[in-house]
Amino acid sequence: MAARESQIVLGLDPDPGALWPDAEPTPRRGSPAERAARAVLGHCRTLIDAAGEACVAVKLQLACFERLGAAGRAALEDVAAHAKARDLLVIADGKRGDIPVSASAYAQALIGGATTPFGRVEGLGADLVTVNPLLGREAIDPFLTAARASGAGVLVLVRSSNPGAADVEDLLLEGGDALWERVAAIVDELGRAGVGAQGISDVGAVMGATAPAHLERARELMPRTPFLLPGVGAQGGRVEELAAAFAPGRAGGLVSASRSIAAAHETLGGGPAAAARAEAERLREAAWALSEQVGAAS
Amino acid sequence: MAARESQIVLGLDPDPGALWPDAEPTPRRGSPAERAARAVLGHCRTLIDAAGEACVAVKLQLACFERLGAAGRAALEDVAAHAKARDLLVIADGKRGDIPVSASAYAQALIGGATTPFGRVEGLGADLVTVNPLLGREAIDPFLTAARASGAGVLVLVRSSNPGAADVEDLLLEGGDALWERVAAIVDELGRAGVGAQGISDVGAVMGATAPAHLERARELMPRTPFLLPGVGAQGGRVEELAAAFAPGRAGGLVSASRSIAAAHETLGGGPAAAARAEAERLREAAWALSEQVGAAS
Repeated sequence: MAARESQIVLGLDPDPGALWPDAEPTPRRGSPAERAARAVLGHCRTLIDAAGEACVAVKLQLACFERLGAAGRAALEDVAAHAKARDLLVIADGKRGDIPVSASAYAQALIGGATTPFGRVEGLGADLVTVNPLLGREAIDPFLTAARASGAGVLVLVRSSNPGAADVEDLLLEGGDALWERVAAIVDELGRAGVGAQGISDVGAVMGATAPAHLERARELMPRTPFLLPGVGAQGGRVEELAAAFAPGRAGGLVSASRSIAAAHETLGGGPAAAARAEAERLREAAWALSEQVGAAS
Repeated sequence: MAARESQIVLGLDPDPGALWPDAEPTPRRGSPAERAARAVLGHCRTLIDAAGEACVAVKLQLACFERLGAAGRAALEDVAAHAKARDLLVIADGKRGDIPVSASAYAQALIGGATTPFGRVEGLGADLVTVNPLLGREAIDPFLTAARASGAGVLVLVRSSNPGAADVEDLLLEGGDALWERVAAIVDELGRAGVGAQGISDVGAVMGATAPAHLERARELMPRTPFLLPGVGAQGGRVEELAAAFAPGRAGGLVSASRSIAAAHETLGGGPAAAARAEAERLREAAWALSEQVGAAS
């Protein structure tokens, strides 16, 4: 973050029907899935090359790759490798949550890899993975164990960016806390053993940028937790409202934008690459300046 | 169910390090992932052929296939096709949960498929998918829409089978309900529009078989909801404790067992195939008899 003066995460959730027109030419041969996956890979590489310099990470929405089957999984790995080659962290956004034996298998898929009688099968090599906490601490633990063995981190879904999140996440518990606040307490507790030299823990929280009213409370409950803040742009979140994220320091918030960068040309005009670069740079400047103000005030 | 007199679901969560010794020979060429995926496919096909006749469905634990990358996804599709060829329903157990646009992409991956400029990309073609409700109704809706368009169904995670489920799912809300009870009310509501001729709805609930004390309460809250009951066998659940599931009829419960069938030879002795068949048949008889008793009593 310091080297790039950026907290911006480039969200990659490619829709085969809305790829950049100037992406690499798509091969005419192959199955629909193979051709779509190649086109998605070309789109993501071009987008990373256009906007990546203003960012610190990419966030791969696993659903968008999974709908292209085996070819989609291969494209996912190639996109992750391309991002790493551009010195970007890779966030695998799958929000997995299952009983411990299955959570361990997901952690193998996304972080470390699996040792089998047929040889070592490497995982995606993600630097951060998003995890769903509904099944409790023991469903998070396998990800945390794998992450700590690989120098990676875990981002637990605490309050999502969709309007309907209120249905369950905002339910009030006995005693008056919202459910998401109780999850926040679990995240804080799990992260205490992983606070690094910067004073930031290795267990993060997904806190939708569309609910800034929750951010200050979240920061009280999770003082050293890095926040992944999705929902900036197309979903309505604004960088200017995210100050509480940066209270523990500049690394306290990762600001994720997807469609607002990839589709910036629709509002800014010009070519997709130039518009994406401009929008990512605008977000970078806004977030960096905000984090500077928060640092100066504290 | 009626034709097979069975409510048993064969859980497939293959571990490349614990495959049946008599499965198909593994090719010597290919990457570790390709070889492991081929071995997993052989194991699953052999297991389906051995125990499938006593079952109505297979439950594919997606995590176990995902850890083998693109080769694992290809194997997943081949296992699903093999199960369908044996007249078994396919349950895709991924417990996905995300904002609506991403949930739609997961539904494309697992149920219907995606229409792209490169042609139609078919999904896994699952008959049932498990879904995580933490993000609210609108995160379930895209699965339900896709399922209803394909004659498929959705199984919402209500109370999972792991001991640590109590951390979040059992939290008490204002008014005294547990969180899982509120989720149950959502499931009941979503399923009202999809009650079929048998009086069973197309929105099911995952109710861990390891917490039978919750089952009666769950049946009160969800009178027409089919229950998927994982955790029988290795996780400690017993068929005899599942009577409440069958209150709305014999199709009210799907009893899922994984390791207890695949590893039956470790306790029963004999070859893996014969032991798996015997254990699946034992479970089938126990569940069918139980559902008959419940029907006679009601």
